[in-house]
Amino acid sequence: MRVLDLIVKKRDGQALKLEEIDFLVQEYVKGSIPDYQMSAFLMAAYLRGLNFEETKALTWAMIRSGEVLNLADIPGVKVDKHSTGGVGDKTTLVLVPLVAAAGAKVMKMSGRSLGHTGGTVDKLEAIPGFRVSFTPEEMKGVVLRTGAVLAGQTEGIVPADKKIYALRDVTGTVDCLPLIASSVMSKKIAGGADRVVLDVKVGPGGFLSDLQQARRLAELMAELGKEFRMKTVVLLTSMVQPLGRAVGNALEVEEAVMTLQGKGPQDLTELCLALGGEMLAAAEVVATPMDGRRKLESLLKSGAGLAKFRELIAAQGGSQEVVDDPSLLPRARRLIEVKASESGFIREVNAREIGVAVLLLGGGRLHKDDTIDPAVGVVMEKKVGDYVHAGEPLAVLHVDDESNLPEVQERVAQSFLIGEEKPSLPPLIYELIS
Amino acid sequence: MRVLDLIVKKRDGQALKLEEIDFLVQEYVKGSIPDYQMSAFLMAAYLRGLNFEETKALTWAMIRSGEVLNLADIPGVKVDKHSTGGVGDKTTLVLVPLVAAAGAKVMKMSGRSLGHTGGTVDKLEAIPGFRVSFTPEEMKGVVLRTGAVLAGQTEGIVPADKKIYALRDVTGTVDCLPLIASSVMSKKIAGGADRVVLDVKVGPGGFLSDLQQARRLAELMAELGKEFRMKTVVLLTSMVQPLGRAVGNALEVEEAVMTLQGKGPQDLTELCLALGGEMLAAAEVVATPMDGRRKLESLLKSGAGLAKFRELIAAQGGSQEVVDDPSLLPRARRLIEVKASESGFIREVNAREIGVAVLLLGGGRLHKDDTIDPAVGVVMEKKVGDYVHAGEPLAVLHVDDESNLPEVQERVAQSFLIGEEKPSLPPLIYELIS
Repeated sequence: MRVLDLIVKKRDGQALKLEEIDFLVQEYVKGSIPDYQMSAFLMAAYLRGLNFEETKALTWAMIRSGEVLNLADIPGVKVDKHSTGGVGDKTTLVLVPLVAAAGAKVMKMSGRSLGHTGGTVDKLEAIPGFRVSFTPEEMKGVVLRTGAVLAGQTEGIVPADKKIYALRDVTGTVDCLPLIASSVMSKKIAGGADRVVLDVKVGPGGFLSDLQQARRLAELMAELGKEFRMKTVVLLTSMVQPLGRAVGNALEVEEAVMTLQGKGPQDLTELCLALGGEMLAAAEVVATPMDGRRKLESLLKSGAGLAKFRELIAAQGGSQEVVDDPSLLPRARRLIEVKASESGFIREVNAREIGVAVLLLGGGRLHKDDTIDPAVGVVMEKKVGDYVHAGEPLAVLHVDDESNLPEVQERVAQSFLIGEEKPSLPPLIYELIS
Repeated sequence: MRVLDLIVKKRDGQALKLEEIDFLVQEYVKGSIPDYQMSAFLMAAYLRGLNFEETKALTWAMIRSGEVLNLADIPGVKVDKHSTGGVGDKTTLVLVPLVAAAGAKVMKMSGRSLGHTGGTVDKLEAIPGFRVSFTPEEMKGVVLRTGAVLAGQTEGIVPADKKIYALRDVTGTVDCLPLIASSVMSKKIAGGADRVVLDVKVGPGGFLSDLQQARRLAELMAELGKEFRMKTVVLLTSMVQPLGRAVGNALEVEEAVMTLQGKGPQDLTELCLALGGEMLAAAEVVATPMDGRRKLESLLKSGAGLAKFRELIAAQGGSQEVVDDPSLLPRARRLIEVKASESGFIREVNAREIGVAVLLLGGGRLHKDDTIDPAVGVVMEKKVGDYVHAGEPLAVLHVDDESNLPEVQERVAQSFLIGEEKPSLPPLIYELIS
């Protein structure tokens, strides 16, 4: 098999066979196919598309590039969750302890931030001492003791995805549905859970800004789940503004704690209950998602979710005291208000711009080796639908390094669109696909 | 300007601006754009196309990547020629001395063989002592003394083409009209001639197998010529079988000499007269191509073309004796006949397969650093339209290294399609575009 022939085949719009796609993936991981041939193939795949059989083959080839975890020694139905990423999306920090408190088993592996979107691992590492790097056996141990684990992606799982994603990121081939779907699903399947609940973000702050496209992605992932015997539920949720109020690593941990205390922002709480209800039903802890939702509401009230978070932090070597005293989290040196220059209703908040602002403050990564300042971030004082008077704060910047400050202030101010009419709020959850 | 934005722009089908294309080319030549981004861009350009403005911009960017020769100190109208390459195409070896004998000034730079097609420089180097590597000043000196030069491509001219072509060759982006046209025309324009006659080969042995596509390429190159003030004439010529009888470096030199003696194969002689007539008219040595053709016929008869070839060889350090005694050229150790297994008319000869056979005998290059055996090759005993009796030779292999011999014999035998009906010969020259 010659890689050039496979590039030409895809370039000319023909479908590749299972063994051809497998050859491309395995040889690329080994380093015997150079980046410049893989990127030509990816661009051809982007423009010519991959049919479902090819997407399935790609998913399988990705899974096969590394190890597949076996969670059989953890009793019960194991459920996983995944979000396509957004700005201010700290649902994992709330959801995993909450559903574990309800009795579900969750072995959750998360990624790091890249570009304008945050990463759960970076948020967790804002907790002093918190450890995210485990072997699969260690992870299972934590799940058996506490019901859940909040870990980073292990090296051995789908190494092809890491290498291919890095290449897609610099060659304009990221937002391609079959490539996204196979990337997400290969990691979920190799992770060994039985069921998965996916949160596909729709809107300018997420991966996909178009509902049609998001729906196609959801259907594709659900279809792949079926093929690989992993029951998959997908929620299409809104990312027209940052989720909750806090954007930035330590700030988001603090907001997650508040949410587990039942005092979180309404949108974040609502999304966690919706996703969590689906997770509990998928894990067969409850009969229906609605039963799951009711159960989770009671656990928020009782403080059981918060207690589980404390337990998880302790099990992973972190300071559980942060749950009771958020001032133990890293704090930025300076708080700076961004004020409204006119009065009116907040009509839009550009989540992507807020994400970029946090990145510029040092809270994210432009390149994968960049270090992160966990303390910095943006806290929204106003959200879509709120009324603001000229001179009132729209947001508060948490700042350490002030070198990008003027640009950050400008971007945050610009990301708020103010108008005379009260806007109608888009639904938080568009639809469910399974 | 960010390269990723330019890849995405082309991927999404938008046209790039002059300065954007220039940025891509110059930064790629400098090495600040990596191969994997350039190959993604090339694939996007292949599939989305480049409009005429972009093709013009690319041509200009390629020219600008190196030096542009100024031939003002050579008196008269300077004419160049170029062939898109084929199998057995030794026209340059015949044409350049012949039109120089007629009074035209030709500074011809040629390439080396790659894959199944031959390269003029390799053919010339089969002549003992023949030198092809010159500085531009040295080349001009040879032209001023003899009327012509047969040189290799100088390093300084269009360095972008060398680097981009090598990448296209391994990423499935070779047969893309705007990329081909800008590659050819940038080199011709930077070469400094006033006029150019192009030979676009059509058929399975050439670059393009489809007449429609070849016509579009011809029109595109003529259009580019107009934009850059280089009058361009394109002949679309047939490559349904190898040109002439000899394929292989020394064997083709010998056939070129025979042709200059007026004893060459009919198709090669005819093509040289057609192209040469156009060159003489373009160089304003004669009033019309038909006048040029008549003049060249008389020079073949008088032996003036042959004398000029002798003079050129001497001027470039080669043994001019090979013109009178071809046995001084490198000779293969063994001649092996490939015989017909059935009787009938030769209906087709797959030129590409013959080219590959010569490559496998060691007469070509698979990789650009491979060394070449100048002696080996294939001489066709039968061509399309000839009748062959079973057991008669179809071709004679000139062999040194016998390691690929069985495969070569098989390929050569298979490349002859024999049938009962006498085929109608396709025209040698399809059409002229200017």
